[in-house]
Amino acid sequence: MSVWLLPENIADMLPREARVIEAMRSSFLSLVTSHGFEIVRPPLVEYVDSLLTGTGGDLDLRTFKIVDQVSGRTMGIRADMTPQVARIDAHILNREGVSRLCYVGSVLHARPLHPMASRQPYVAGVELFGSTSAYSDKEVICLGLEALRTFNIQNIMLDLGHTGVVKAILDKDPASGSVQDQILFALSHKDRTSIEEFRGVLQDRTVDALLKLAVMFGDESVLDKIAEEFSDYPEILPILDHVRWLGRMSGADGVSYDFADVHGYQYLTGVTYSVNIPGRYQAVLRGGRYDDIGARFGRRRPAVGFTLYLREIVAVMDTRRPYAVLAPINDEDPLLNAKIKELRSKGLIVVQSLPEDSIESLEEAYRLDEELLFVDGTWTVTERSVGRRI
Amino acid sequence: MSVWLLPENIADMLPREARVIEAMRSSFLSLVTSHGFEIVRPPLVEYVDSLLTGTGGDLDLRTFKIVDQVSGRTMGIRADMTPQVARIDAHILNREGVSRLCYVGSVLHARPLHPMASRQPYVAGVELFGSTSAYSDKEVICLGLEALRTFNIQNIMLDLGHTGVVKAILDKDPASGSVQDQILFALSHKDRTSIEEFRGVLQDRTVDALLKLAVMFGDESVLDKIAEEFSDYPEILPILDHVRWLGRMSGADGVSYDFADVHGYQYLTGVTYSVNIPGRYQAVLRGGRYDDIGARFGRRRPAVGFTLYLREIVAVMDTRRPYAVLAPINDEDPLLNAKIKELRSKGLIVVQSLPEDSIESLEEAYRLDEELLFVDGTWTVTERSVGRRI
Repeated sequence: MSVWLLPENIADMLPREARVIEAMRSSFLSLVTSHGFEIVRPPLVEYVDSLLTGTGGDLDLRTFKIVDQVSGRTMGIRADMTPQVARIDAHILNREGVSRLCYVGSVLHARPLHPMASRQPYVAGVELFGSTSAYSDKEVICLGLEALRTFNIQNIMLDLGHTGVVKAILDKDPASGSVQDQILFALSHKDRTSIEEFRGVLQDRTVDALLKLAVMFGDESVLDKIAEEFSDYPEILPILDHVRWLGRMSGADGVSYDFADVHGYQYLTGVTYSVNIPGRYQAVLRGGRYDDIGARFGRRRPAVGFTLYLREIVAVMDTRRPYAVLAPINDEDPLLNAKIKELRSKGLIVVQSLPEDSIESLEEAYRLDEELLFVDGTWTVTERSVGRRI
Repeated sequence: MSVWLLPENIADMLPREARVIEAMRSSFLSLVTSHGFEIVRPPLVEYVDSLLTGTGGDLDLRTFKIVDQVSGRTMGIRADMTPQVARIDAHILNREGVSRLCYVGSVLHARPLHPMASRQPYVAGVELFGSTSAYSDKEVICLGLEALRTFNIQNIMLDLGHTGVVKAILDKDPASGSVQDQILFALSHKDRTSIEEFRGVLQDRTVDALLKLAVMFGDESVLDKIAEEFSDYPEILPILDHVRWLGRMSGADGVSYDFADVHGYQYLTGVTYSVNIPGRYQAVLRGGRYDDIGARFGRRRPAVGFTLYLREIVAVMDTRRPYAVLAPINDEDPLLNAKIKELRSKGLIVVQSLPEDSIESLEEAYRLDEELLFVDGTWTVTERSVGRRI
């Protein structure tokens, strides 16, 4: 087998993609730091005890394990950064008030999320700790959508939900505890047949409520219908008011509501949201409230955040070659070197051609329409005659 | 044991350090991409066959191994990005002419380089493939020093060397092959006693030459002394001319020459260079020419590059808290929201305070000297009265 073949669902990010990913990283961090989010960089590996605390079995299966030669203990390669950032908030920064943290980095999955998914997703996100205020939900949702807009994603459709609706239904049925995972799985797939099979295990009113919930999703009008149909569950009303307010304040181009799709949100405990874009199988943004994750670290902190999946987004972006100017090398010519410096400081790419440079190779990297020529006593950026050799 | 303790020589990068690291990443990439270097992002893991091809046993020992559940084959977590970038040049981009590539990312070491070193160095670098021209050495060295200057590193002292000097000495002694690693180790530690012990194994002239080389380092005058003392080895003369030219063209504030310190440069085959800064044990920049690394991939390409160790550099940088402006939340006030947007677009950090925000927590993150107040009909940035509660 060729020694340069990569593992399945692992790929190099080549210049065209990497350049756009880097620009996204940079504009994301400019945006969120201007809102007061501080950058943290948790490590790639931690002891599994710490890395998987408060998370589900799905994350465990997805985490690569290695033995630390120094301590002999088992470490995991991070498959998700949110629990790491929660650990930093709870035990490293250890602040009493609000902490606003953000991060960008790679995570690694032992098994891909779906057959086409990269096992090395590149994620960017924010986490806001220490606030239960409705405004903290709003701050984070609005910021997520604004980040997508800085990537020139148009016509953003927001999916909003809340884990509290299903919780209100299940909490009233003592039998639900033991089958909760199966129920959530069936519900998130809107699988009414599987839900029906819980009749007998669960109370009839529970099964009926779940069946109804599975088909109630859509625009804001669905909130009124749920309020009407679920009058037995008065805890739901303030939840509906909250998500209605969030939807209106979000600034999304469209909002749909769905309270059944809570399965994928492993540790979430409140509002949930995601954004999908046409042509991508996976959501480009996911997030929500998770007030319990710190509990097993010994410090429960309210938290709300989102994650952006940058490799999913770059797939719909313009990754054409950038423009570059070709220039000669001449150490003896201060005018030439000053001109090149000036062009680069303006953000232009200037390639000084080495003897081995070839136009063909350079044109694989750049749109090389211009070159620096000495015309009438000054170095001037000039249209390059096509096909001219270096 | 507390579940949030991290493995030895592994640490979170907290906001003050992470913010400066991010700024360094960004200014590094702006600089090198303006010189025509294209960004690549090789994966965190590869099959070891590929990851360790053409590299030494030291890198193997430093590389974490994991079993790929999908293929059953052994993968390594990258401990060095240069061989990965060489693989991309040789087999993915596969260009005939020059390729200029750059990268930034974390590497992971199973064992730390020294007791105080992080096992997760954060590196940035460039690699220029396909040119043997003297100008390609110069392009890369000058770019490395310019990168250090963008980080405000003053008074840059460049150490220059060349693997060809030791090679010229050892090539004339058939016995040197089997003990080469021990010789290079002794030489790089300027350990004359250990070198003396090779007398009997090596020819006397070889041992004498190595003993002389071990003490000949310093400013440009050392080049003349080496030329004089090593007249038996005429291959050395053009090498001395080349490094003299590079030293003069480099733009460094000072240059010292040392041809004995070649041990740490595992796969290098020509010019070598490094920059140390006061107070740091490890070099902040290392690099050189490595024309052979692609050979075992089946495609030998000349190459020259450098690596910056960003965590070593950030240790001497200004990591004080940034300034931020405190602002209230009011959805009903478009003037307030427009003013906040304007300030943020100018690069200011504006924190809109949530009910749970505390001045104490915010001041751990920011120098919070100003706030946005409504004064005489407009929202105005005003000095914050110290101690005022939110």
